[in-house]
Amino acid sequence: MGRVTVRRPVLRLGPDGQELRRPDALAAEEPLEIRVGGTPLSVTMRTPGHDVELAHGFLLTEGVIGAPEDLLSARYCDSLDDEGRNTYNVLDITLAPGVEPPDTSLERNFYTTSSCGVCGKASLDAVKLKSRFSPAADPVQVHYRTIVGLPDALREAQKVFSATGGLHGAALFTADGELIVAREDVGRHNAVDKVLGHCLLGGRVPAAGTVLMVSGRASFELVQKAVMAGVPVLTAVSAPSSLAVELAAEAGMTLVGFLRGDTMNVYAHPERVDR
Amino acid sequence: MGRVTVRRPVLRLGPDGQELRRPDALAAEEPLEIRVGGTPLSVTMRTPGHDVELAHGFLLTEGVIGAPEDLLSARYCDSLDDEGRNTYNVLDITLAPGVEPPDTSLERNFYTTSSCGVCGKASLDAVKLKSRFSPAADPVQVHYRTIVGLPDALREAQKVFSATGGLHGAALFTADGELIVAREDVGRHNAVDKVLGHCLLGGRVPAAGTVLMVSGRASFELVQKAVMAGVPVLTAVSAPSSLAVELAAEAGMTLVGFLRGDTMNVYAHPERVDR
Repeated sequence: MGRVTVRRPVLRLGPDGQELRRPDALAAEEPLEIRVGGTPLSVTMRTPGHDVELAHGFLLTEGVIGAPEDLLSARYCDSLDDEGRNTYNVLDITLAPGVEPPDTSLERNFYTTSSCGVCGKASLDAVKLKSRFSPAADPVQVHYRTIVGLPDALREAQKVFSATGGLHGAALFTADGELIVAREDVGRHNAVDKVLGHCLLGGRVPAAGTVLMVSGRASFELVQKAVMAGVPVLTAVSAPSSLAVELAAEAGMTLVGFLRGDTMNVYAHPERVDR
Repeated sequence: MGRVTVRRPVLRLGPDGQELRRPDALAAEEPLEIRVGGTPLSVTMRTPGHDVELAHGFLLTEGVIGAPEDLLSARYCDSLDDEGRNTYNVLDITLAPGVEPPDTSLERNFYTTSSCGVCGKASLDAVKLKSRFSPAADPVQVHYRTIVGLPDALREAQKVFSATGGLHGAALFTADGELIVAREDVGRHNAVDKVLGHCLLGGRVPAAGTVLMVSGRASFELVQKAVMAGVPVLTAVSAPSSLAVELAAEAGMTLVGFLRGDTMNVYAHPERVDR
């Protein structure tokens, strides 16, 4: 536990034959298997830590749970490494009575994996049907100046990134730009799942009136996760994909990309951006 | 087909109340389902184009095929959208007689999905067992100056990135820095699969004496894909993860990260870097 960075020797090469051998901090990456009632559901390569939040966020954004009380317990299984130590890489979830476990049949699993169906249209329909919360009616207004300040606020919260340069970050803010929670991970989706899981555990889902900021691109899957948690505004440092914009437009979510310096591109529902 | 970018209206906001409404080019993102003999194997969110290379690369790096003749045909299925048009989003593969189809049982599927087992050790062992080709004995030497030039060469080859800012790039070079092939995709893994699939189709796998350059981080999964194709040197613009370094060290692959300007970090097997 707490294995967020790992130190390794590295050979640093520079111009004019410079060579420097020194230890370097790397972002830790280990697989996490999530089981529900003992049945394997998913394996993700993640940065260890906040695993219970990750599991909550994953199950929320896959439509399995919608409230903290839907999940009774999360405990590490006895998965041992060669030296007989618990790897803390298998987390078994017990759902509350009446909460339907996820369908782990092959077909469903493909959908879980890709967070998507086979054709764009079908997958958009599937999300709309599945999502318990909709950002569409959220009347929140966020000021342009507030949005412009979010990348710096996220970066400040990303402590490990500054050490390793190797982690994706995600953070949830209030409409006034106050940080609610920030998480980082080698996997983009995991960072978002950890943030949303944290909110679910704190009774803050649906996440009405919030802004989710991500450090990289806005993919279809990240927009989908935000929709599933009822987040009304998603902002990204880099570009969105075509399907991300399509889903945000359909789901009633404000999508901002290329948020750099004091400019931004609003790809969907600009009516929430105050000037 | 050829849907590599999609134009969408965007509202560009700047300081002092600047507002500009204009069309913007987005990186296209659509799901691709790969079937083998009619059985669904994987769904990936990808940028359309080079799908046959992608399927070859995916099946190569998952250990299903090892030579171009292992795959008899790849054809788009008749998946239709609401308006009755082929989506070109389902590709059915026919393997040659005697080539064992992948195990699509649930457990195997999890491994395919994550490209990894449950504990790091087990997954490393699995790769070593599965890989047909090993970079360990590859005597190639690559000059420091050649490596320093690769990021610019990759960026030059990334035509869509300059238009959308939204794509990951991967390119394979000779040890002299000559470009063999470059591909870009919304998905990091897809870009690498397309490059390696191209090489397989051209009879260039195992990819002895080559350098694979990726635009982002070096994750465990990217190192694994390179190992499966026998690539001896992997270079990345950004940081590697801990498990990526561990696998490269064990598999005998040279791993370079933080390749920026004229400096680089060598994380594994520096003996191939000439000075």
